[in-house]
Amino acid sequence: MPEPDHTVHVDLGSVISDRSYAIEIGRGFLDDPDWWRAVVGDRGIVVVTDDQVGPIYAHQLKQGLSHAAPITEVILPSGERHKHMQSIELILDAALEDRHERRSLFIALGGGVVGDMTGFAAACFLRGADFVQVPTTLLAQVDSSVGGKTGVNHAMGKNLIGAFHQPRRVMIDLNTLLTLPQREYAAGLAEVVKYGLISDGEFFDWLVANRELLKQREMETIAIAVKRSCEIKAAIVAADEREAGVRAHLNFGHTFGHAIERMQGYGDWLHGEAVAAGMVMASRISADRGDLAPAIVEQLMAFNQSVGLPSAPPTGHTAEDFLEAMSSDKKVSAGKVRYILLRGLGTPRITDNVTVEDIAGVIAS
Amino acid sequence: MPEPDHTVHVDLGSVISDRSYAIEIGRGFLDDPDWWRAVVGDRGIVVVTDDQVGPIYAHQLKQGLSHAAPITEVILPSGERHKHMQSIELILDAALEDRHERRSLFIALGGGVVGDMTGFAAACFLRGADFVQVPTTLLAQVDSSVGGKTGVNHAMGKNLIGAFHQPRRVMIDLNTLLTLPQREYAAGLAEVVKYGLISDGEFFDWLVANRELLKQREMETIAIAVKRSCEIKAAIVAADEREAGVRAHLNFGHTFGHAIERMQGYGDWLHGEAVAAGMVMASRISADRGDLAPAIVEQLMAFNQSVGLPSAPPTGHTAEDFLEAMSSDKKVSAGKVRYILLRGLGTPRITDNVTVEDIAGVIAS
Repeated sequence: MPEPDHTVHVDLGSVISDRSYAIEIGRGFLDDPDWWRAVVGDRGIVVVTDDQVGPIYAHQLKQGLSHAAPITEVILPSGERHKHMQSIELILDAALEDRHERRSLFIALGGGVVGDMTGFAAACFLRGADFVQVPTTLLAQVDSSVGGKTGVNHAMGKNLIGAFHQPRRVMIDLNTLLTLPQREYAAGLAEVVKYGLISDGEFFDWLVANRELLKQREMETIAIAVKRSCEIKAAIVAADEREAGVRAHLNFGHTFGHAIERMQGYGDWLHGEAVAAGMVMASRISADRGDLAPAIVEQLMAFNQSVGLPSAPPTGHTAEDFLEAMSSDKKVSAGKVRYILLRGLGTPRITDNVTVEDIAGVIAS
Repeated sequence: MPEPDHTVHVDLGSVISDRSYAIEIGRGFLDDPDWWRAVVGDRGIVVVTDDQVGPIYAHQLKQGLSHAAPITEVILPSGERHKHMQSIELILDAALEDRHERRSLFIALGGGVVGDMTGFAAACFLRGADFVQVPTTLLAQVDSSVGGKTGVNHAMGKNLIGAFHQPRRVMIDLNTLLTLPQREYAAGLAEVVKYGLISDGEFFDWLVANRELLKQREMETIAIAVKRSCEIKAAIVAADEREAGVRAHLNFGHTFGHAIERMQGYGDWLHGEAVAAGMVMASRISADRGDLAPAIVEQLMAFNQSVGLPSAPPTGHTAEDFLEAMSSDKKVSAGKVRYILLRGLGTPRITDNVTVEDIAGVIAS
């Protein structure tokens, strides 16, 4: 190749990246000024929440933050359809108009949508401000609040605009789960059981054994489930922050799940419900190949039934429908659908070798 | 402080950051397919330029990229007043509508405004795509294209929204300087001479000695000036990527310069012209204190006069006017204006100890 006259090297390889953080799991800290004082220090605060969570919990959080100033509060309309750039601009406008500095702290109080948007706004604010996740749904607690993925949707698809921006801390107050609607709570449990399936067989067994306590929201049991889920997600994210390898295992059940969401129309089944059915499908294909003990599939279905999750895909869709829905997924590269199957409990493998017969067999059973 | 029931640590400290890159300086590569093939490989391309630079150079660049597909071209209206979020959305819309993937490469063809916006759009595209800077102004070549600062303006101030996102490569084709208007070229030289003053006395002497050749745009001389400027900026950025310490030295002349821009109304004096006058002011204060040889101030003024830069602030502003303009600067923290002075050629120091008398003395002289 042609040579430049001069080349100057910019060496940033030695920059120290201080992006490690703690996920703290407890009960009743939301309105505890002592807890918050240690987190916030003397920094300004931008609290972002939505019109569903805000009315229930913002008052408690503001009690906890009573020593902090200035506090800016941004209340967004709730729901995935408001997860777009205009909401990011609302957050940034409010923070800039209140003259926050780069050292101000953004706090996301809500579910995954609020967390993703607050993190992205913090990433863009004066080229990067700190943020803290206070996830109030089980799904956000065990999934979206850990891992640093932030962003918004675009007309062309979900989460197409965003940044990797790690929170400084994740503060999980389990009491917030007590007001969560039953279906949303169950949808979070789908991701919890996923961690057992892809990474920890003992945890899976424990979840199956404790499914009734989980369903009843017994707090000691939930605390263990949330803690172990966060540990597993944290280990996977630490091994693969930018999603080049093992982080793909987190998509277990999601290839089929996205197809179900697409075929049903988004909003009919919750994401976690579709993933629950997708995990049953992926597990059964694994069992049909002799890679997974059939008893595991039965246990997964029993878990789903106990906690109120579907244990089969919706009726009326053929194997061809599934294949078509999956191949239009944005994550499909070069036309090949990638499946996460199991080659034993706790051990995922990635393959593109799933046939229409495999899928037809699962639907028939 | 109160203790959480459980704490999970997310350890990202060991992630390898591959953000080092080369700045290549040469002539005539813009339309050279061999050069570009090595840079681009088989990736898709998003070229971003503006309606001033595009008509002159986009055709050459597209010749150089003739092997690449798909190519998306985004032509933004030129000028600082279009440096806002709506332009970022135009870039992202175009890239997403053409179904680019995360491995597509964004190329910024233009001055600092185009570079800042392209870099920010790339940072947000699917949570982070690569980008290459092809700066076509001297200012962008020696300043904004190196260092990873990207972003846009907001009604509350300049560059308030953005990201630190390092380019994968900076490709400087010096031939693009031949079409640059004289005032813009001179404004770039202000940043060049700044590097000598804050970091390399020999380079300063060489610039003063070669000022006529620089003014005439003698290419061998420009190449050396650009290369040494990039080396100095790269060293400072590598030592302080996130602007915690020595990177502040790059603001030499800028505290007074911003005040001049503010007092004159933005757009009357070019940024580089205001900085040129600001550097004379800061140097003279340093000389008045006995920290800098008065001959250096004279040499700086001679350099400025030769290349067509102001060597004094505009008339009609008192020392009090300056202080007022400086204390409303967004970079003022806790009410103290920070000045970069010199305690000898090549050796900056940061101080807030500059009095109204100091400034009045400079204006009077």
